[in-house]
Amino acid sequence: MMGIINGKMFIDRLNRLENEIWLDGEKIEGHISEHPAFKGLLETKRSLYDLQTKPGLKDQMTYSLPGKKERAGLSYLQPKTKEDLKRRRKMFEHWARHTHGMMGRSPDYMNTVLMSFASSAAILKDRDHCFPEHVQALYERAVAQDLSFTHTFITPQVNRSQMGVNVSPAPISAKVIEKNEKGLVIHGARLLATQGGLTDEVLVVSLPKMYFESDEAFAFSIPSNTKGVKFICRESFVLGKSSFDYPLSSRYEEMDSIVVFDNVLVPWERVFYYDNYDAAFDFNMKSSFNAFAFHQVITRQIVKTEFLLGLAQTIVDTIDVSEYQHIHAKMAEIITGLETMKALLEKSENDAETDEWGYMRPSVIPLRIVSAIFPDIYPRFTEIIQLIGASGMVTLPTEKAFHSDIRGDLDQYLQAAELNAEDRVKVFRLAWDLTMSPFGTRQTQYERYFFGDPVRLTSHLYSTYPKEEQAAVIKEFLHIHK
Amino acid sequence: MMGIINGKMFIDRLNRLENEIWLDGEKIEGHISEHPAFKGLLETKRSLYDLQTKPGLKDQMTYSLPGKKERAGLSYLQPKTKEDLKRRRKMFEHWARHTHGMMGRSPDYMNTVLMSFASSAAILKDRDHCFPEHVQALYERAVAQDLSFTHTFITPQVNRSQMGVNVSPAPISAKVIEKNEKGLVIHGARLLATQGGLTDEVLVVSLPKMYFESDEAFAFSIPSNTKGVKFICRESFVLGKSSFDYPLSSRYEEMDSIVVFDNVLVPWERVFYYDNYDAAFDFNMKSSFNAFAFHQVITRQIVKTEFLLGLAQTIVDTIDVSEYQHIHAKMAEIITGLETMKALLEKSENDAETDEWGYMRPSVIPLRIVSAIFPDIYPRFTEIIQLIGASGMVTLPTEKAFHSDIRGDLDQYLQAAELNAEDRVKVFRLAWDLTMSPFGTRQTQYERYFFGDPVRLTSHLYSTYPKEEQAAVIKEFLHIHK
Amino acid sequence: MMGIINGKMFIDRLNRLENEIWLDGEKIEGHISEHPAFKGLLETKRSLYDLQTKPGLKDQMTYSLPGKKERAGLSYLQPKTKEDLKRRRKMFEHWARHTHGMMGRSPDYMNTVLMSFASSAAILKDRDHCFPEHVQALYERAVAQDLSFTHTFITPQVNRSQMGVNVSPAPISAKVIEKNEKGLVIHGARLLATQGGLTDEVLVVSLPKMYFESDEAFAFSIPSNTKGVKFICRESFVLGKSSFDYPLSSRYEEMDSIVVFDNVLVPWERVFYYDNYDAAFDFNMKSSFNAFAFHQVITRQIVKTEFLLGLAQTIVDTIDVSEYQHIHAKMAEIITGLETMKALLEKSENDAETDEWGYMRPSVIPLRIVSAIFPDIYPRFTEIIQLIGASGMVTLPTEKAFHSDIRGDLDQYLQAAELNAEDRVKVFRLAWDLTMSPFGTRQTQYERYFFGDPVRLTSHLYSTYPKEEQAAVIKEFLHIHK
Amino acid sequence: MMGIINGKMFIDRLNRLENEIWLDGEKIEGHISEHPAFKGLLETKRSLYDLQTKPGLKDQMTYSLPGKKERAGLSYLQPKTKEDLKRRRKMFEHWARHTHGMMGRSPDYMNTVLMSFASSAAILKDRDHCFPEHVQALYERAVAQDLSFTHTFITPQVNRSQMGVNVSPAPISAKVIEKNEKGLVIHGARLLATQGGLTDEVLVVSLPKMYFESDEAFAFSIPSNTKGVKFICRESFVLGKSSFDYPLSSRYEEMDSIVVFDNVLVPWERVFYYDNYDAAFDFNMKSSFNAFAFHQVITRQIVKTEFLLGLAQTIVDTIDVSEYQHIHAKMAEIITGLETMKALLEKSENDAETDEWGYMRPSVIPLRIVSAIFPDIYPRFTEIIQLIGASGMVTLPTEKAFHSDIRGDLDQYLQAAELNAEDRVKVFRLAWDLTMSPFGTRQTQYERYFFGDPVRLTSHLYSTYPKEEQAAVIKEFLHIHK
Repeated sequence: MMGIINGKMFIDRLNRLENEIWLDGEKIEGHISEHPAFKGLLETKRSLYDLQTKPGLKDQMTYSLPGKKERAGLSYLQPKTKEDLKRRRKMFEHWARHTHGMMGRSPDYMNTVLMSFASSAAILKDRDHCFPEHVQALYERAVAQDLSFTHTFITPQVNRSQMGVNVSPAPISAKVIEKNEKGLVIHGARLLATQGGLTDEVLVVSLPKMYFESDEAFAFSIPSNTKGVKFICRESFVLGKSSFDYPLSSRYEEMDSIVVFDNVLVPWERVFYYDNYDAAFDFNMKSSFNAFAFHQVITRQIVKTEFLLGLAQTIVDTIDVSEYQHIHAKMAEIITGLETMKALLEKSENDAETDEWGYMRPSVIPLRIVSAIFPDIYPRFTEIIQLIGASGMVTLPTEKAFHSDIRGDLDQYLQAAELNAEDRVKVFRLAWDLTMSPFGTRQTQYERYFFGDPVRLTSHLYSTYPKEEQAAVIKEFLHIHK
Repeated sequence: MMGIINGKMFIDRLNRLENEIWLDGEKIEGHISEHPAFKGLLETKRSLYDLQTKPGLKDQMTYSLPGKKERAGLSYLQPKTKEDLKRRRKMFEHWARHTHGMMGRSPDYMNTVLMSFASSAAILKDRDHCFPEHVQALYERAVAQDLSFTHTFITPQVNRSQMGVNVSPAPISAKVIEKNEKGLVIHGARLLATQGGLTDEVLVVSLPKMYFESDEAFAFSIPSNTKGVKFICRESFVLGKSSFDYPLSSRYEEMDSIVVFDNVLVPWERVFYYDNYDAAFDFNMKSSFNAFAFHQVITRQIVKTEFLLGLAQTIVDTIDVSEYQHIHAKMAEIITGLETMKALLEKSENDAETDEWGYMRPSVIPLRIVSAIFPDIYPRFTEIIQLIGASGMVTLPTEKAFHSDIRGDLDQYLQAAELNAEDRVKVFRLAWDLTMSPFGTRQTQYERYFFGDPVRLTSHLYSTYPKEEQAAVIKEFLHIHK
Repeated sequence: MMGIINGKMFIDRLNRLENEIWLDGEKIEGHISEHPAFKGLLETKRSLYDLQTKPGLKDQMTYSLPGKKERAGLSYLQPKTKEDLKRRRKMFEHWARHTHGMMGRSPDYMNTVLMSFASSAAILKDRDHCFPEHVQALYERAVAQDLSFTHTFITPQVNRSQMGVNVSPAPISAKVIEKNEKGLVIHGARLLATQGGLTDEVLVVSLPKMYFESDEAFAFSIPSNTKGVKFICRESFVLGKSSFDYPLSSRYEEMDSIVVFDNVLVPWERVFYYDNYDAAFDFNMKSSFNAFAFHQVITRQIVKTEFLLGLAQTIVDTIDVSEYQHIHAKMAEIITGLETMKALLEKSENDAETDEWGYMRPSVIPLRIVSAIFPDIYPRFTEIIQLIGASGMVTLPTEKAFHSDIRGDLDQYLQAAELNAEDRVKVFRLAWDLTMSPFGTRQTQYERYFFGDPVRLTSHLYSTYPKEEQAAVIKEFLHIHK
Repeated sequence: MMGIINGKMFIDRLNRLENEIWLDGEKIEGHISEHPAFKGLLETKRSLYDLQTKPGLKDQMTYSLPGKKERAGLSYLQPKTKEDLKRRRKMFEHWARHTHGMMGRSPDYMNTVLMSFASSAAILKDRDHCFPEHVQALYERAVAQDLSFTHTFITPQVNRSQMGVNVSPAPISAKVIEKNEKGLVIHGARLLATQGGLTDEVLVVSLPKMYFESDEAFAFSIPSNTKGVKFICRESFVLGKSSFDYPLSSRYEEMDSIVVFDNVLVPWERVFYYDNYDAAFDFNMKSSFNAFAFHQVITRQIVKTEFLLGLAQTIVDTIDVSEYQHIHAKMAEIITGLETMKALLEKSENDAETDEWGYMRPSVIPLRIVSAIFPDIYPRFTEIIQLIGASGMVTLPTEKAFHSDIRGDLDQYLQAAELNAEDRVKVFRLAWDLTMSPFGTRQTQYERYFFGDPVRLTSHLYSTYPKEEQAAVIKEFLHIHK
């Protein structure tokens, strides 16, 4: 038992793992924390973990484990009161503010996922091929060692047709290909492990879907350096290390990866469930996973939206366009989105109720509303920033240009109403990195699909929303008896 | 002192007033409560006032006046705690549910306006041409006698150009044309008094605007039957008295009118202020009028939105279209609007603060957000109902057809998946009356402009929203020091 | 053989038919042309037919029948050249301008449908249960007598679920219930015969749909007064006969009706086809019906859009709001819609090609684009008129008010920047009748669904559009060989 | 006189100029055609010029100069007939197809600008400080030598407030600071010269704006290597030279630059006009510049839209999502945009009229409609591609990964319904480069602002559109006489 870690401990432990990571056709060798594609992000993660031990913040970021002298990250706290919920939300805000909401997989996210799993593990009790005690054990180990995780929920996008049948004889989507005394043997791939290879463990959970086959209905967590596990990265979006040129991507570029399982043995004590479609369905739909995960995610998205609002306003000030009605309308869109999200988050806390296992679960409807609108409004907000910035978004010199013989020209010709040329370029480069760089456009796509396919989210919102009472009012009004 | 009235008292008092009301070129003679254009509405108002004395509801609808045995309508209560605010909101909900949110000028609305004026009258203290004591006196008289009001805030739409100058030598917009020892003499017209002539008094308040002239900066309240006051009605939208054919307009058609002041003497004790532009501005912008009025209005709009959701869902069930994704998307729009409004209203109560005069004022930002979105989403929701109803919205027979020889044909050919022909037609006629009848389209236009010109509302939201903190975060992040 | 008729001939013939029409629970007795619900419309139709014999217009409205001395309506002309097409379009414009595009079922529409049927009748040749010669015969009779028609394409909206099964033992949707030596016996109902009962004949054609049963696959035309045919009207939207108060509905209110077939015998010589699903499908999908009908409809919709633009501009001038950027944006939307439609219509003529039977068929893609956008933009344009008119749309006095003692007040207080009070009220009443009256909202719904369910139209546009060439460019660019 | 050049001649001449270009703080030395940031683009330009001499194409790309044996680029042809216009358009299509519409400044664009200037030079005749003969001389020189140009129309974005006053004592926006016997002396900067430094000459024209000062009202063209002219580039968006990884940016990345005029002497014979506000206004508003330039631009944008449609369809096929209604709706949006643009372009040609100087000028209204919608629909189309591509847009390995030990994994796990893994990744990398790379997002911003500020474009469309006739119809209909 050691409790919370600090940044150095995180980095050292990660470097020791020597996970198998492939980038641009090469296997990463040496300390991952020193690789140009990961260095900036890992620096940021180091500083995030350091928040846990920072004097003024420690109490807000951690809690005492009952009966122990160690403290644990507050994101592991299983909330039993509305106060606990609000405490959790404030802790999320600290994590999120430190990265301005740009890091989708800050540690509190995955810790919250783990916490929700442990809090709902009882769903698996007494069911075939289910091991709720393994969920609990993982949770306890994670708390004790402040482990970091990535997860992969989705399968390769071979064919999205409902009737689509995979023709490949070998597995594409990761499957159980063997069960033996030691555990399950998994072969195939899973998609979109953000920060894959940059965490201690990898959590694999199947989201039920139509035409789900039982050999895909499993969940487990294993160390990232388990034999046969490979992380294949997309191209890095770190374009350079200058924080002047790339204020966001130099710091917050989380990598996304494909996780390949090459005949990977998952020991039994790591398995949560397998070969049980109903259990997989219930674990996803009835657990507190959605409620708790959304609570974290939306807190982060609010912080991010505040950052966008601040940036948009800074551009308005910089080029002095605050007199135009169409600018007001665009700014009001961001304000409306932000305040709406804040109100809905708060309502989810106010309407929280204790679930059947004694945990205080945020009301999921207000959170689901946010999950249905954010995929639309976030891209729109980035577009608004481009529309306000207009032609100023394009002709942006680099840091090196400001340190060259043409600095005088830049100073004169790029000055703004409210800022000198260098500061003005800083502002616009930030706007560019947020909305037009590979980092920025990936952020947009990421927020768009964070909660899954928006079309299905909308159908789900409709079908789960209680409408009967409202319809009954109509029938009563019209004296329809049925 | 008599305190709350019931429906009969309201009707009798109104009939006695014999206000001068013109409709379709004729002056209304006889009891207004029996006129076909007003009968349905006044029946509804009667039943609304009866809510105040209804046994189970009385406690929720009224409060004890300190030191008196009479009770007053709760909408007159000056809230001092958040509990008071929530109590007020529940009372609004009772009024609104009784009319499904279709009556914009239910008594609680104007009572709330009066209450906000009294609660902010101190703004007028010690200023030229200002009489805060008259505001207080009106409030007390209103409470004591449970008076009903209409108001007129806007001026004739002669010319909306900013530079537009009225060329008429005689006043168009109502103006002070004389001051004498008895009071002010007012001449000219004011617009859009909803339920004008159907209330005890008419409250006239000038909203400051650009190029505001000081002879337009006044506020007062006078009895509706004051000599020289005329109410000129638009065409009535009561198309018939059948509640089968016109379930809404037969009951809820509030009239709108132009109020003409023909050399009307307003006694000094009725004047709140005159000839003081700054006072008029402050009274509108700094008083609690917006906060309290929005609190009532939005509560009503939420109830109305619930009704729309119920109706939309009833149509979905009736013709069995719940399987279509585009139907889900449309229904999800209504759900999202409804939940957003509810969350924002709740936030305005949670964030309420005591104002400088000791009253618990709802936070105005969340309410202003709703005021900026409802003018867009309400019309969209009516469109969604039309889109779901599709061709079924058009070919709708009348009640009389169901009582004729072709009933058998109607029963057979208009039956629906879930309902018999008569009930199905009821549902669609309701949808028609809500969205396509003159009553329905007037409701749409009314909600669109309830809070004023949406373009200006948006600009106002932007300019009053606190954005500095967010912009400061950006400058700190970029190390811009200014 | 008599050729074109004039207005009086149309009215006289119609009155003689004594069709069975039910309105508001009563069977219409006496001359239909004198009934208040139909009088205005039939007056308008009379004046439309008179255009055919009007000296200056006759050449543009009619053509010489080869080898005969009579002339026929130009809408019956089977076009063989692009010149013919343009000539037809100009003739459509004359009809449409006379009613400002407000009459969906002006005679040229149905004549065009008949012409397209005759021009494609060869599709039915040598197929089971098909009688192309009856189609031709009807066409010739229609030309010779200048017959008028209504049609019914759709079936009762009992259940729109794809899997929905009618549970009624008796037919709801009109079906063939017997075949005998005289003809088919039809029982059941069809929907939405606009001007049902107000024409010489009723044309019944089945649009193929999913789960189409063969006893619904028929087409025929019979006189409106055939025994057993009943027209059940919706409520009339004629609110009054004053053209000041109701400038559009007093003149252009086409009625919609349910057509009931009560064991109606359709003589064999009237039957086009029956009990042949494939023929029904081909007749709808491969005939020139869409191309020619869209050509007429879109010409009318363009004229209507011009009228809306003119009205919107008149309001802008009336209240002098031309300086506002948001007004420009709204007006530009209408302009863009109008010019887009004009360009697409023109392109459909320029790209016209001779079909397999020798007729010059307009290119259907540009027309289909219009059919996909007009259901969205027409409602938006009516909304724009409401948004520009704002509060001015509501408080509108009637003609009688202008002829009463309060005329002086109206003249003073309703005057506008550019117009006197009476003219200003005329303008706004027109705007109201176009967008907010029962007539106006029915027009909106009518245009929205004219071409069918917009969701399916969109899918149809996508699936029929040739995209292969564009996709091939991509593969070539990427050197993908497949 | 030499007439058309080929690619090699273009490159050689450009290398010889040794323009002063600054990139990332360094002055470009050596052959510009070999610099990594420009090499790909210049290769593409070389191949474009080679189209002019390509056997099968020569006739379509060039024309015989009257009385000379040399040929000139067809984009220089001053059209006198509609046939000339169509010939020009087909030539534009050749240029555009070669680069799939990705090169905004293909040579035909600037040639067209020059041609329009020459065709309208008569506007400047007999006006103060105007030299129409210099315009003509430039045109003839350009034709004779097949010169290439960039232009700069806009001024630095210091302050966009209407009332904004520059506080800098030294010029920011380029100004005439001296007139002497040799010419004008210009000092200051101009913005957004796309391909600045990569052309023979730089054309400087002032677009009139509010608060335009007369020392900014000038126009001229000078060689790019004129003493004192500097091009300051933005960051290069060439991320690598692999056409697998960056299929578009490796080939089509046009640079944008700030042009600095450091006391630059513009010889009199190069000056078109100066110090004449009215002439500047007329030259921009009444010349054929808009009509001819839009004709070229929109032809290119149509080709680009076809490319987007092809790509979107390829993605639909690749992951087999063609069954979904929301996919149809998205694809139908692109189809509608494309067909609308094509119809409007064609209408501009059909409605072309001979202008006062004898040239066949395309009708500008249909083109202006496109210019008002393309800034909205192009970004939407890129969003649609992202929405169809979904999560597949993110996890994309590089070319090198396909040539490494993990190729087997990629082949298995990235295969698609219709394509093998490598081809699928090609398709998605193209989608990424078009919509999410720095190149792609710059393209989006470029198209958004190509025609100027969209808000002003809309106001301009409204104010220049002829609406009187439509408004007159309304007055006639309502019998309003004014």
